Amino acid sequence: MTSGAPQGPAAPRRRGRPSRTRSETGPATRDSILQAARDEFSERGYEKASVRGIAKAAGVDPALVHHYFGTKEQVFEAAITVGFAPALEAPAAVEEGPLDGVGERLTRFFFGVWENPATRAPLLAIVRSAVNNDTAAAVFRRLIAAQLLGRIAGRLEVPDAELRAELAAAQLVGIAMLRYVIKVEPLASADVEQIVARVAPVVQGHLTGA
Amino acid sequence: MTSGAPQGPAAPRRRGRPSRTRSETGPATRDSILQAARDEFSERGYEKASVRGIAKAAGVDPALVHHYFGTKEQVFEAAITVGFAPALEAPAAVEEGPLDGVGERLTRFFFGVWENPATRAPLLAIVRSAVNNDTAAAVFRRLIAAQLLGRIAGRLEVPDAELRAELAAAQLVGIAMLRYVIKVEPLASADVEQIVARVAPVVQGHLTGA
Repeated sequence: MTSGAPQGPAAPRRRGRPSRTRSETGPATRDSILQAARDEFSERGYEKASVRGIAKAAGVDPALVHHYFGTKEQVFEAAITVGFAPALEAPAAVEEGPLDGVGERLTRFFFGVWENPATRAPLLAIVRSAVNNDTAAAVFRRLIAAQLLGRIAGRLEVPDAELRAELAAAQLVGIAMLRYVIKVEPLASADVEQIVARVAPVVQGHLTGA
Repeated sequence: MTSGAPQGPAAPRRRGRPSRTRSETGPATRDSILQAARDEFSERGYEKASVRGIAKAAGVDPALVHHYFGTKEQVFEAAITVGFAPALEAPAAVEEGPLDGVGERLTRFFFGVWENPATRAPLLAIVRSAVNNDTAAAVFRRLIAAQLLGRIAGRLEVPDAELRAELAAAQLVGIAMLRYVIKVEPLASADVEQIVARVAPVVQGHLTGA
């Protein structure tokens, strides 16, 4: 998004010029397509969302969506990478202090993202798409494996670092499911500090325990 | 399902008699409706499933589905209670031995249900519906809160028993999400014994720890 030239994985094959474009090409058009894609996937989920619907919402021709982002799967990947961006700051939380406090830092970081409605909404949309569609699950898997868990594991100096990072993530993911999606009480209304006190040692144990 | 008489929450208001029924009423008809409902919710999810579709698959009039089970929400509750039945044996796993082994017993029970494709499939279907639809989530929430977590909590002699049961469940639910739904490696292919060794102490700690 730094250059005015068309970008994206698809070759610039233009079968017929887009008819109703605002600025034809350029970063503003690309951004408006990306925003429309986030809204469309968020509201309709991966399966029901369509490149045609995204194009219509952005006021561009569907060919322009393909031109910038490629297939529907690639549009989804670009859209969820934006929505998932706050969560991708987690590896920094691992680095920024001593290793014996990593469980608490990661746990607090996690709740910081999920307790904020603005960052929770796109995460919920991603989880819903991934649970319902294998293609969306594969995109999500690549994102969390390579950019989140892999990076956290890479900073641990323990055996089985990847499995440890995943078991720690599982504790947090399960809380997100029960607290924010299924909304089971008393967990859904419990004070964050109370949860952190119980969960941070578990996350720490998974990451660095014997 | 023990009596031959019509059962169900709805009053027996019959607006026109069903036209193509096998045995009109009775346990066999009720069972075939329930099986059709499980298949319909499993394949299409709560939102897309319809009483009409269930009735068609069972070869009965939609009025008969309402007669036995009530609203679509009540049909869903009856269907997922059947699919969720193996999981509802979990409270017994808490009782059948000493309290200091409850973490391992629950963890082994959990993987016994999830590793078996026959019991995993309906659970996956329930999770997919609950993640996507608030009505389905409410039904699932009542089921796991009242019949599963509440019963486990009732057998623990600790303060905050319900929150503890939910945090323990969250560890296991998160593993189910990452291993069976999103399929993140290495967790998706890890040996169950390796996971049990790491997770049973966490479940135990949530349930009975200081």
